[in-house]
Amino acid sequence: MNYSEESLKKHAEWRGKIEVISRVSVNSREDLSLAYTPGVARPCKEIQKNPELSFSLTRRWNTVPVVTDGTAVLGLGDIGPEAGMPVMEGKCALFKSFGNVDAIPLCIRSKDVDQIVETIKLLQGSFGGINLEDISAPRCFEIEQRLKKELEIPVFHDDQHGTAVVSAAALINATKLVGKKIEDLRVAVNGAGAAGVAIAKFFLQLGVSDLVLCDSKGIICEGDPRLNAPKQEVAKLTNKRKLTGKLDVAMKDADVFVGVSVANCVTKEMIQSMNKDAIVFTCANPVPEIPRQDAFDAGAAIVGTGSSENPNQINNVLVFPGLFRGALDVRARDINFDMMLGAAKAIAATVGDELCPEKILPFAWEMKSHEAVAKAVAEEAIRTGVARV
Amino acid sequence: MNYSEESLKKHAEWRGKIEVISRVSVNSREDLSLAYTPGVARPCKEIQKNPELSFSLTRRWNTVPVVTDGTAVLGLGDIGPEAGMPVMEGKCALFKSFGNVDAIPLCIRSKDVDQIVETIKLLQGSFGGINLEDISAPRCFEIEQRLKKELEIPVFHDDQHGTAVVSAAALINATKLVGKKIEDLRVAVNGAGAAGVAIAKFFLQLGVSDLVLCDSKGIICEGDPRLNAPKQEVAKLTNKRKLTGKLDVAMKDADVFVGVSVANCVTKEMIQSMNKDAIVFTCANPVPEIPRQDAFDAGAAIVGTGSSENPNQINNVLVFPGLFRGALDVRARDINFDMMLGAAKAIAATVGDELCPEKILPFAWEMKSHEAVAKAVAEEAIRTGVARV
Repeated sequence: MNYSEESLKKHAEWRGKIEVISRVSVNSREDLSLAYTPGVARPCKEIQKNPELSFSLTRRWNTVPVVTDGTAVLGLGDIGPEAGMPVMEGKCALFKSFGNVDAIPLCIRSKDVDQIVETIKLLQGSFGGINLEDISAPRCFEIEQRLKKELEIPVFHDDQHGTAVVSAAALINATKLVGKKIEDLRVAVNGAGAAGVAIAKFFLQLGVSDLVLCDSKGIICEGDPRLNAPKQEVAKLTNKRKLTGKLDVAMKDADVFVGVSVANCVTKEMIQSMNKDAIVFTCANPVPEIPRQDAFDAGAAIVGTGSSENPNQINNVLVFPGLFRGALDVRARDINFDMMLGAAKAIAATVGDELCPEKILPFAWEMKSHEAVAKAVAEEAIRTGVARV
Repeated sequence: MNYSEESLKKHAEWRGKIEVISRVSVNSREDLSLAYTPGVARPCKEIQKNPELSFSLTRRWNTVPVVTDGTAVLGLGDIGPEAGMPVMEGKCALFKSFGNVDAIPLCIRSKDVDQIVETIKLLQGSFGGINLEDISAPRCFEIEQRLKKELEIPVFHDDQHGTAVVSAAALINATKLVGKKIEDLRVAVNGAGAAGVAIAKFFLQLGVSDLVLCDSKGIICEGDPRLNAPKQEVAKLTNKRKLTGKLDVAMKDADVFVGVSVANCVTKEMIQSMNKDAIVFTCANPVPEIPRQDAFDAGAAIVGTGSSENPNQINNVLVFPGLFRGALDVRARDINFDMMLGAAKAIAATVGDELCPEKILPFAWEMKSHEAVAKAVAEEAIRTGVARV
């Protein structure tokens, strides 16, 4: 099937992948008096006395906007806020189907960090959490950090943390298969945008001790004056062997390669230079960092990609629906590392007996995975004290 | 039934009067490839080339936020944005049930005109129109005017124009019953907030030549230095007999009284001082300007109120669902006077043979009224050149 043509046709038919429905009847005077005036004055007054009650008397508890400025949509780059809408709506459909979360797309016509932060901040009273989406680096880091600090509801930038969590789940299962320990892994990550930086930090928190991060210019080295602030920060945490050079240097003797970068930037020689039983995740979309078969031919033991056409799709749809479900269920104030780690472990554990080199992750449509994520995230929120109910 | 207690109980059960559903299946690899990646890249790219296509390839065409700052909610005043949410959700449920519009509540935590305008402006790419709700006067006038000027989608402040349109519909039918002509009517309006100012202007555009508007201090007179800018403006259009004094002066010899003010500010004597076959609309809620029976006892021929408990509820739910349906159907750039007049006439005409002093308006749940409004509004949008399809 030509997904491009067919998807365009379908989108024109659907005219929207989500819709809003009423949960109440309004077909009589009595219905209206309860759902609307005069009865509605009472829940309003209760919330006025205690604004926290907006979580129990309105849909706020279950509602999350998928917010973008359209600057980093899929592999398409800065296509503008309206053009990002089909992706945002798709995420909203996935939020509902896999997490029973009421999500709405919100695109913001600004690339200014202050304006984006301010807009979201002013709207927080309608929502139980905020999902940031497809906002380009480095602005996305500041936007997320400021919102996490200034908002009373959880904020999650999917391109950073969704990707990190699903990559971590894949890593947990892949290392199990090749019989290596996470603490002993040498990891090379290519791409230092939202996903790459987040994956690097998450893997280090997971216990990886040797991680080298590359951007398009090569290995990110502490003190390099060309680096922006987020890269400077991650440079301090990575590259403990003080390597310099390009990606080929970073990949030599690595146990794991994670690409969140561009098509065809990895050669067979680079894969061959990796350690035995190499784990290779090539997430560039739609064309990966190296063709899947080439990676196997060069000696990779396990390959994951960003594509739904191959086994082992490293897909953050495995993360965000269950993660928000869990966070919303306990009215979490934040989404912290322990909650994300719980999600990664839950995804990995769901594969269970099916675990093999061709299945290191559940399929997106396996509900048991989303349910396990929600449960783990809620438990970790309670354990770490960010749950409010 | 105690609507207050029962409504609170129901709201706690409902935990939200609306929800978001998915219109697409995401239960297989193929489903995901069409609704999400990789297929979704194509509609994104088409919208990038032509942002207008966001109206046909996403739900934008049918989606309207119900936006409030919570400053003038029902008769409760400034109760805060979160406390306004039950009303906004109620409107969203009505939008869906009566207009098949996908509406979402958006409460803004700011009372600053610039911030509110800016927030809505930045979000317009997600929406087909904007419904402003329960924003206090005089800020609501400036907010609406600026948005109407600066946005490419229609903006409608329901408290102003919804109320004006339904009052006009009631006036059209009431005058028919008493055998008076609109051009000959002497009208007194009490209350110079959002609703009162809009009703005054709308009635004048409808052909009423003699209209006196009062605020809590009395008749609004041109040049009075105590008046704010919106009142100064409406003062120039009203009170052509240059009356001075309080409400009693305004109501003497009036054919019509419209109250959008406060409980019990009208006496039997004032009603008695009106012309024969007086038409009295007392919309203060929950307690009207004068008890309904008192108005009849004092000689009123027709009485409408804001309450669902009595006949002739002057309820703007008769307006906004069909009005937005019509505007969205033709992708209107604006909601102008002709479209609103079309709505008023359509509502009035729907009553048809049932027209009598106890039924001058349709019931909210009569779908034929909403359908007639939508049709008339779409036709007027096309006729006046604001339709885009």
